Amino acid sequence: MKGIWYSSTAIATIVGAGALLAGAAMADDSLQDVMKSRNLTEKDVLAAAKTYVPSGGRDEFIMFSSSGQAGQVIVYGIPSMRILKYIGVFTPEPFQGYGYDNESKKLFTAKTPEGETVTWGDTHHPEISKTNGDFDGQYLFINDKNTPRIAVIGLKDFETRQIVVNPVLTNEHGGAVVTNNSEYVLEASQLPAPLGHAYAPLDKFNESYRGGITFWKFNRDKGMIEPENSFTLELPPYSQDLVAVGKGPSEGWAFLNSWCSDRYIGGIESGRAPFEAGCSAKDTDFLHVINWKKAAEVFKAGKFTKINGMAVISLQTSLDEGLIYLVPEAKSPHGNDVSPDGKYDIVGGKLDTHDSVFDTEKILGLISAKTFVGKDAYGLPILDMKASLHTQVELGLGPLHTQFDSKPCVAYTSVYVDSQVVKWDYCEGKVLDKISVHYNISHLTTMESDTVSPKGKYLVAMNKLSIDRFDPVGPLHPMNHQLIDISGDKMQLLYDSPIPLGEPHEGVAIAIGKLKPEVRYKYGTDSRTGDESAFAVRPGSEKIVRTPGKVEVFGTVIRSHFTPEIVQAQDGDQVIFHWTNAERAENEVHGFGVSQHTVNLSLEPGKTASATIEKASAGVYPFYCTEFCSALHLEMEGYLVVAPKGGADVASAAVSGESVRTKADFDKQYKQDIDTQAVIDQVVGYIVSTNYKDFPTVVALVEDATDQLNFAKDARAKADDYAKREDWQNAALWANQWWQYQVKAADIGLRAKTYLEQNGAKVTK
Amino acid sequence: MKGIWYSSTAIATIVGAGALLAGAAMADDSLQDVMKSRNLTEKDVLAAAKTYVPSGGRDEFIMFSSSGQAGQVIVYGIPSMRILKYIGVFTPEPFQGYGYDNESKKLFTAKTPEGETVTWGDTHHPEISKTNGDFDGQYLFINDKNTPRIAVIGLKDFETRQIVVNPVLTNEHGGAVVTNNSEYVLEASQLPAPLGHAYAPLDKFNESYRGGITFWKFNRDKGMIEPENSFTLELPPYSQDLVAVGKGPSEGWAFLNSWCSDRYIGGIESGRAPFEAGCSAKDTDFLHVINWKKAAEVFKAGKFTKINGMAVISLQTSLDEGLIYLVPEAKSPHGNDVSPDGKYDIVGGKLDTHDSVFDTEKILGLISAKTFVGKDAYGLPILDMKASLHTQVELGLGPLHTQFDSKPCVAYTSVYVDSQVVKWDYCEGKVLDKISVHYNISHLTTMESDTVSPKGKYLVAMNKLSIDRFDPVGPLHPMNHQLIDISGDKMQLLYDSPIPLGEPHEGVAIAIGKLKPEVRYKYGTDSRTGDESAFAVRPGSEKIVRTPGKVEVFGTVIRSHFTPEIVQAQDGDQVIFHWTNAERAENEVHGFGVSQHTVNLSLEPGKTASATIEKASAGVYPFYCTEFCSALHLEMEGYLVVAPKGGADVASAAVSGESVRTKADFDKQYKQDIDTQAVIDQVVGYIVSTNYKDFPTVVALVEDATDQLNFAKDARAKADDYAKREDWQNAALWANQWWQYQVKAADIGLRAKTYLEQNGAKVTK
Repeated sequence: MKGIWYSSTAIATIVGAGALLAGAAMADDSLQDVMKSRNLTEKDVLAAAKTYVPSGGRDEFIMFSSSGQAGQVIVYGIPSMRILKYIGVFTPEPFQGYGYDNESKKLFTAKTPEGETVTWGDTHHPEISKTNGDFDGQYLFINDKNTPRIAVIGLKDFETRQIVVNPVLTNEHGGAVVTNNSEYVLEASQLPAPLGHAYAPLDKFNESYRGGITFWKFNRDKGMIEPENSFTLELPPYSQDLVAVGKGPSEGWAFLNSWCSDRYIGGIESGRAPFEAGCSAKDTDFLHVINWKKAAEVFKAGKFTKINGMAVISLQTSLDEGLIYLVPEAKSPHGNDVSPDGKYDIVGGKLDTHDSVFDTEKILGLISAKTFVGKDAYGLPILDMKASLHTQVELGLGPLHTQFDSKPCVAYTSVYVDSQVVKWDYCEGKVLDKISVHYNISHLTTMESDTVSPKGKYLVAMNKLSIDRFDPVGPLHPMNHQLIDISGDKMQLLYDSPIPLGEPHEGVAIAIGKLKPEVRYKYGTDSRTGDESAFAVRPGSEKIVRTPGKVEVFGTVIRSHFTPEIVQAQDGDQVIFHWTNAERAENEVHGFGVSQHTVNLSLEPGKTASATIEKASAGVYPFYCTEFCSALHLEMEGYLVVAPKGGADVASAAVSGESVRTKADFDKQYKQDIDTQAVIDQVVGYIVSTNYKDFPTVVALVEDATDQLNFAKDARAKADDYAKREDWQNAALWANQWWQYQVKAADIGLRAKTYLEQNGAKVTK
Repeated sequence: MKGIWYSSTAIATIVGAGALLAGAAMADDSLQDVMKSRNLTEKDVLAAAKTYVPSGGRDEFIMFSSSGQAGQVIVYGIPSMRILKYIGVFTPEPFQGYGYDNESKKLFTAKTPEGETVTWGDTHHPEISKTNGDFDGQYLFINDKNTPRIAVIGLKDFETRQIVVNPVLTNEHGGAVVTNNSEYVLEASQLPAPLGHAYAPLDKFNESYRGGITFWKFNRDKGMIEPENSFTLELPPYSQDLVAVGKGPSEGWAFLNSWCSDRYIGGIESGRAPFEAGCSAKDTDFLHVINWKKAAEVFKAGKFTKINGMAVISLQTSLDEGLIYLVPEAKSPHGNDVSPDGKYDIVGGKLDTHDSVFDTEKILGLISAKTFVGKDAYGLPILDMKASLHTQVELGLGPLHTQFDSKPCVAYTSVYVDSQVVKWDYCEGKVLDKISVHYNISHLTTMESDTVSPKGKYLVAMNKLSIDRFDPVGPLHPMNHQLIDISGDKMQLLYDSPIPLGEPHEGVAIAIGKLKPEVRYKYGTDSRTGDESAFAVRPGSEKIVRTPGKVEVFGTVIRSHFTPEIVQAQDGDQVIFHWTNAERAENEVHGFGVSQHTVNLSLEPGKTASATIEKASAGVYPFYCTEFCSALHLEMEGYLVVAPKGGADVASAAVSGESVRTKADFDKQYKQDIDTQAVIDQVVGYIVSTNYKDFPTVVALVEDATDQLNFAKDARAKADDYAKREDWQNAALWANQWWQYQVKAADIGLRAKTYLEQNGAKVTK
């Protein structure tokens, strides 16, 4: 029988074999063969080449898309369309520990009227923070349509850091939209209801139901919304829809469209025509034109009342101060997008075959001249529609949203019923190109469209239906996000991308150079606040604090053990675990699960996270690392042992199961460790003989390996110490632990060596 | 100003414009240009061509992968690596309504020892149901490591239909593994604990802690596991790991490996070496060889005791009946895979550089001859290791799992520390090829490997680390699943695929022809049981049933309204909504959210699902469709109005907001409807002039359009009736509703027309 265990010879053999892989074989088939066997056209191959990102390559843009009723944010790369992350926002997501660790649970402050925590959200419109009208890549904002809330996501770690609950609005849709220097995050209501979540019967709809738009003040330094510096404008009980902010000549203004300004109430169960008929029976609805800069001054001047703690500027005050004006728009519009130069606001027809291009300068001129054609039922001044328009362009059946190109005057509009994207010139008012999408597109996204300088190049069509597009997976289909090349005169469909989870509503895309995510946290960070956690401990300072009825664990995790490993408690105790990941290495994440409990933590390097078992029951609960962190991952385990009340001594020491280690066991292990060290030294020798410092990835790996070898040194010292005392049991165990660290160092060293070989490192010494 | 609203002329123009798109323009750039600008090699283009699936094309295989601590199952296509679905299993997932609707909440029967519902799971090993040792594509099984459970997923609708909770084991890992005709689903424990979730102190480890393996009886006709016909074998307190079932000569046997057979207990907090050192200090661990067919007979003979209602066969009975034997295996092994012909069981070394190829016929021969070399501490007979082995092959540092090729004797093994896949011949015992993966691979999957007839062709490397592979997204990286072409002699890396959510542990892949999912449910189906729901109603039979303290809604949803739309209740009432989706059209899914509440339903065509608000609070709660279902999706809304106790009459009729419709309004709408009908007739005329019946997709669309036009007819009848009575308000509203259905019919008709044009339909009449 051949030798078992990693012998130093084995390691040397394997390490040497790496060179064999450098000239990896080309498959012998040609492109022609592949095209024939897979039935691909030249156009297909071209599309494949335009979207394929080779192993280790990078995408050009990152798109953040809402996930709709999944309550999260989806992050994907363009042009590969590979999904990189789902960020937990309004719905708990255990892979990230989100909504499962104590720290993130604190973000879930929304309660149902019955007092239960709201653990679901319907995300619609993400937006990136802006500086001078351009995306700056610092923060992402996203709204919840169902329970009006705005979440702030930090783009250093792609984690949700704040959720503010709207205490005035009951249902929303318009938002999150950000002003050009991220002064405010806008959130507009959709289905009218009494403000402040109050009650009023439906027959008091005109008098008591209202819309509203909230301006959430964003503090960029803190990365937090300040509810106390935020305010809401009361609006008529129309169904307000999407909001867009002005730029350039329209800076300081916001444009908010609406539908159902007829204020129809359905009731098909009583023989009435349903909402869908009554809400779209009137010829026009109203685009709300809002002077938000002036509104902010009115707020600062204290001209508001408070509802549930939120400052609300009444309709009467808006009338008195001239904050809101109405422009008729074709009934039941949907998209509402301001052009990059701020001169035009484009409203999608939905039930009209046209897009309406409103001229913001004309609108502001009419307002300035107080040229009104009437008032609505609430006294708001109405502007003349024709005098406000630049042009109307016929685009097709069901035009919805508009995105912009880097080329002036060029826009792309989604057309729902026709299932098309229409490229058109909104200055000249003419259609340039059309392309079919599959099927029923709602939003669409061009690169950095919602800024003063869109980047063009790619367009993502966010299609609602995907009949016949993919391998079938049952009645619930994925959505189909289609990537379209818009760099040429004609649009070209490149890629069908199924969305496996959630129905995304909108996305924003940013050039990757603008994002600067981190790979680790400062030691002991509470990632949900960004601050140092009060529960962080350093290796060596771990402790279990016992007070009557409570066991509190302050521990660390590192490849591949928990400290402490054994936690004893008594029936009925509250048991709190605080773990800090003491790793520094990129991607060395540990998890923490407790058998039979709803506990999972995701502990990225440097993070501190906590879990509480409110009332432990007598029993034995193994806990373990839920991330495959190293070769010894399975062995990263521990026990929570809960004794019955008045039962065994809770502090009783653990005993081993069976094995007795002898001096021979120690000697054998010790020799293996010494031999292994020699091999590791060889790998290290190779690495330092190269220009490895030119490769940041390798520099990080070397730091990590050095860490592991320092741990190894500590374990060796313990082994030596026990050996000196002839405690062979512990001497052998610690010699084995020394070897465990060596295996981790070897793992890292080999990764570094492979990287250097595959990335053209040179031997310089 | 140009005309607004969909005029019949506008529809005709747009419909006609479709032809313009048929000859979609090729981009003018060439493959060479794209390669140059995107810095692609010829090898990259070849890989792109091997993985790219053109719009509307199909993948060849479907892979089901666990999502680890996300608690779900991931479904993706091979070779495109596009993720098609995340199936909710042990963790609630609102997009699917899973864990949010009343029906699926019933599946969550697991409770923590403190009595709380367990809403998290750690999925590890999916397996597809088998017939004669081959995947049959009917059901998928998946285990929960943390709270031992097995879930059954139906592959007609890709939904979880059953979760059985293991009442004996506290923590598990091995499973779900299925016998060759799906007689049993196996689930083996991992970290030992007292059986039946009992308490015992750690110093009673040897006496009171145990492992176990459960054989869950599967009833294929019902598609359900039968706990009453299932049993568990008590095992020694080793850390049992992965289990594989025999085939051919080893049919009727199971092979279960283990680690920490030294039964070491850590305690680093007390100065003891941690688990990772002590659990891997012994030279060998034990492969358990289990005669499950005989065990099933022993169970049937009643030779068991019951623990928490589960039949448990004691170690003593196993000894008496000869059910379990042990074979030494190199310490801390991991992978454990039986070859397609059942002659070999291959155990991955993990801490040994070799894979051990055990000869199942030798093992069964030794057992048959009662040739044992000793007993373990629990009396189980031990076989000679050397006499049980076929060969051992040196593969590298950290060999883990093995998958099989369609070619005889060819296997692929993941090597964790080396970050490689090794192709080798397990009959001859020689290495054939190696390829680097990025980085630290655990499981790997070849097509239909775990069967008697693997399909080869592709291999997916499930890598744990993805440092430097993708655009960075913060400290928590996606995993990297790499697709490798194994059709030639040399393996070729094709594609890097990030996994955005969860850390998948294992996957199984099946040829798409074996899956037969459905696109709709039989009307009124409770999808979580597959049975007809007691709460389903047909359109026209909707009702609101009021009893003291309770309001129960039996409603329907269809493009684009709820029936009923207005639901009145009183403070404190329990409000229950049952909705049936009355659509038949593929992909016409509706959702249901209630403002300010944790309520979301996913209503696929034919499905009935329910949501309960336990104690409604006075207030106004708009509800709405959470799936973008049609152009009038936003208008698919309603109100739950909860009056204060003793307040307004809960049955008070709704009133409209403002608009009064006149005869002129009615006439205008009616004329538009008549004109629109003429255009729809044109589209229908075109469709029926073609060989559309050759296209099942179009046949389904035509059925759907016919439905919509029948609804339109009903609305028209109502409009006519009101007009006769000169009730112009309602006549105009219903005329508008007639038009709403026309828009939906036009939408479908255009989709059908585009499909026919793009798929080469011929005009035959």
